[in-house]
Amino acid sequence: MPADTPLPQFDDVLDAAARIAPHARATPVLHAAALDALAGCGLAFKAECLQRAGAFKFRGACNAVFSLDDDAAAGGVVTHSSGNHGAALATAARLRGIPCHVVAPEGAVRSKLALIAAQGAILHRCEATIAAREAVCAQVQQASGALLVHPYTHPRVIAGQGTAALELLGEAADLDVVVVPVGGGGLASGTAIALAGCAPHVELVLAEPAGAADTLQSLQRGERVRELVPETVCDGLRGLLGEPNFRILRDHGAQVLAIDDDATVAAMRLVLEHFKLLVEPSSAIALAAVLAHPRRFAGRRVGIILSGGNVDPDRLPWVDR
Amino acid sequence: MPADTPLPQFDDVLDAAARIAPHARATPVLHAAALDALAGCGLAFKAECLQRAGAFKFRGACNAVFSLDDDAAAGGVVTHSSGNHGAALATAARLRGIPCHVVAPEGAVRSKLALIAAQGAILHRCEATIAAREAVCAQVQQASGALLVHPYTHPRVIAGQGTAALELLGEAADLDVVVVPVGGGGLASGTAIALAGCAPHVELVLAEPAGAADTLQSLQRGERVRELVPETVCDGLRGLLGEPNFRILRDHGAQVLAIDDDATVAAMRLVLEHFKLLVEPSSAIALAAVLAHPRRFAGRRVGIILSGGNVDPDRLPWVDR
Repeated sequence: MPADTPLPQFDDVLDAAARIAPHARATPVLHAAALDALAGCGLAFKAECLQRAGAFKFRGACNAVFSLDDDAAAGGVVTHSSGNHGAALATAARLRGIPCHVVAPEGAVRSKLALIAAQGAILHRCEATIAAREAVCAQVQQASGALLVHPYTHPRVIAGQGTAALELLGEAADLDVVVVPVGGGGLASGTAIALAGCAPHVELVLAEPAGAADTLQSLQRGERVRELVPETVCDGLRGLLGEPNFRILRDHGAQVLAIDDDATVAAMRLVLEHFKLLVEPSSAIALAAVLAHPRRFAGRRVGIILSGGNVDPDRLPWVDR
Repeated sequence: MPADTPLPQFDDVLDAAARIAPHARATPVLHAAALDALAGCGLAFKAECLQRAGAFKFRGACNAVFSLDDDAAAGGVVTHSSGNHGAALATAARLRGIPCHVVAPEGAVRSKLALIAAQGAILHRCEATIAAREAVCAQVQQASGALLVHPYTHPRVIAGQGTAALELLGEAADLDVVVVPVGGGGLASGTAIALAGCAPHVELVLAEPAGAADTLQSLQRGERVRELVPETVCDGLRGLLGEPNFRILRDHGAQVLAIDDDATVAAMRLVLEHFKLLVEPSSAIALAAVLAHPRRFAGRRVGIILSGGNVDPDRLPWVDR
């Protein structure tokens, strides 16, 4: 998306909510008094790990796929995410009855590829470089007429991700602050737009791995960081903040907290113990941020989006193997 | 409960639903197309692992505690379950503002004792024999005036457990069969009463560990088995079927399927993968029963009660340690 492309607006989030309603799950908002006591604040957890394809990503992918007119849709869609967005796009394309191509670099997680293939998507293998991914994507687009649905910069994707916060506010209307993880920034920027539109008094806090804190640096410098070697257990948050996402978050004045992986893994265990829900490290980081900054959140009503739950049960990070 | 005590009726289940409504969670009913495909039938999962205190047990305990008049309640309640019923009773007593005593045998799981203590219950340690438990229980009753709330034979407990099936039928009205685990038989007999009262065409199938299959034997013989050395990973299903529970299930004509632990552990993993929910082996056995008998359930609409989720994340049965 070039720098002069209009950014998605609150109306786009409302349109997305209506568009995806027949397909997406209205995930539950959960509470646990014991976690409130531990955190010293009132927590409302939006369980997007129970969303279709296991993550909030289905919202944006579904909005993008169902926004296409029939002619545009006929050629199908393509993306180069082999993670949650790939599975979400494959699911949305299957529901629409159109082809989906996923460009998967060598080394992608096999269980996630299996999930994508199970949705009927066509997998294209390539080398594990950005250049190779983009080249294969371009080939697929040219050969098939498929449209690229970028995992976090596509305006319909951003608008779709904002619908999770809309639903959260609908069930927990008295929130003071919402905490979401930030990687590429699709959920973060969608949430910023949703809050600005319907609850401008609610603060937005972003939780980012200390080992991949480009959003923190970008917002501090006022300029987007373009290089970073991520080192974090949060596999969903290793990407760089996107360009439109940067502009939206900068204009919104979102705050970023950098969180150590140890705290994230501890939070993942807490969610499992208290809600019996297995969430990804990339989800648990939002609770970790609250627990790591008790004074900042003391006594407040805090909404947390548990973004996804696609974890291999054989590779739980707290199990010594 | 002596053999001539009246058994709880459907009206008692309806009363229980009204009584516990302000306190219990209306847990969600979950679906997963991939599990439907695997099972060859339509599955509706009632997620009681998300109930207060982590299991359906809160329903029965809450019904028993809130059925007491103020005078009777003043002395508090006592039980000798150090598992989910103990935690449930402690939670219900705290909500009512009355004392709760839990008699805990040596060797009880520490994390469950911690949960019970965290609810403000008074723990009484004793030797790990039935005689010792009952003696300490009697002492506590005499000294404090506390009333015994048995984990599965108490009629208010049975009626309370039946409310889970009521809610399940309310959300998934077109079920052909409901599958629940059976241990002492509180959930099983409560479900039988609920089905007989509002959906008599719905079949009731009980899932029991092959290594603790006294219910199967009891119903086959027409006489309650009184001795069994259980050997199963399902720690919640090791007790013998209770006497009133036996009568209710016999009269209802409930069917029992004996399930191997390997199948139960595999089902526990499937629930975790597809719903991101960590359930106890004692819960997962119901799904295991459906998967182990594909012809029996083929094409039918099957309700499953995921009874509880209190598992130590450090001791997942599929992890080689």
